[in-house]
Amino acid sequence: MAEPVLTKSERTQERILEAATEEFAAHGIAGGRVDRIARAAGANKSLIYDYFGSKEQLFHAVLERHLRDVYRTVPFDAEDLPNYVGMLFDFAMDHPRLMRLVMWNGLERRWDWPLDETSSFSTQVAKIGAAQAAGRVADTCPPDFLLTLIITLASAWTVANPFGTSIMPDAADRRATLRVAVSDAVAQLTRRDLTVSASRDNSAGAM
Amino acid sequence: MAEPVLTKSERTQERILEAATEEFAAHGIAGGRVDRIARAAGANKSLIYDYFGSKEQLFHAVLERHLRDVYRTVPFDAEDLPNYVGMLFDFAMDHPRLMRLVMWNGLERRWDWPLDETSSFSTQVAKIGAAQAAGRVADTCPPDFLLTLIITLASAWTVANPFGTSIMPDAADRRATLRVAVSDAVAQLTRRDLTVSASRDNSAGAM
Repeated sequence: MAEPVLTKSERTQERILEAATEEFAAHGIAGGRVDRIARAAGANKSLIYDYFGSKEQLFHAVLERHLRDVYRTVPFDAEDLPNYVGMLFDFAMDHPRLMRLVMWNGLERRWDWPLDETSSFSTQVAKIGAAQAAGRVADTCPPDFLLTLIITLASAWTVANPFGTSIMPDAADRRATLRVAVSDAVAQLTRRDLTVSASRDNSAGAM
Repeated sequence: MAEPVLTKSERTQERILEAATEEFAAHGIAGGRVDRIARAAGANKSLIYDYFGSKEQLFHAVLERHLRDVYRTVPFDAEDLPNYVGMLFDFAMDHPRLMRLVMWNGLERRWDWPLDETSSFSTQVAKIGAAQAAGRVADTCPPDFLLTLIITLASAWTVANPFGTSIMPDAADRRATLRVAVSDAVAQLTRRDLTVSASRDNSAGAM
């Protein structure tokens, strides 16, 4: 008898998380209203607090769930960063609500990213470092600089970047071109055979 | 007699803009309170509306003033993008309040950027395009892609990027290293003699 009850509870939690995604993506943490979430989810407001603790914890649960989707859908691959950045670009373009949640999180709070050990930024940085040490990725840039550049570039034409769509209002229409450019840029910065010399004597006005 | 009166009014407007910068940077447009701004500026609330029209217009005035500072302090230079991105990086690191204003603007509103003709994004894109056509900047990437990458990378370790300081919590301490990495990356992507071939046969596992 316990199982159907759990399933109903799970379905309610799903509806709450979906309604909360919508509410927080639109209004952020301070602006988000638990009673609107309750209404949209067809759930009792006090039930939301029972399940999730507080509005802040509900936001955290929403963010965590969507970030987990990223790591499941786009597994990190230090051995093929040009391909990885392309897949991450696709994911970012396809998930505007997640990008808004990420932005609100940055502005209103500084939750540690809810990441497990295999998907944490520091693990990814270590993997890039290892690929550099093994000579498979150019080591002109520090590995954490490379990871920042990759994630930043992948989301440059979403709401997570205040400049991208201002500079390129037609970014969505040029998605295929942008994807190639993003991937090529990362290829150029990580190619083993172009390192060191590539960043030298630039200002010499090469023609 | 008119002049001292004007000067006093200007000083009041200065205090209002400074208080508004602080308030909007902290709380955004919806969360910002005109009465807090009035109190901090030692000005009458109705005077603020007289000067600036509405809370939204006051935000716009604040954003415009700070962006104008960017264009004055860091003149755009399509002929030396590696140097330009370094100076822009310095400005972004030194002006956290501006970066927060830019973020709130992106999330809460989509003002067109308050830019005059010489500093508008489209003018900068055209200048990069001209430098590419003249063979002084690599033309592997579209010019508006390059501009996006430059501005995005310059602000990657400010609040305008939700990932940068999560990946590199010590970014402020490593500022000199980061500045070199940013400038080198742009050099590598814009060097005339590395183009075309640089983005080819990347996945061949070059050792």
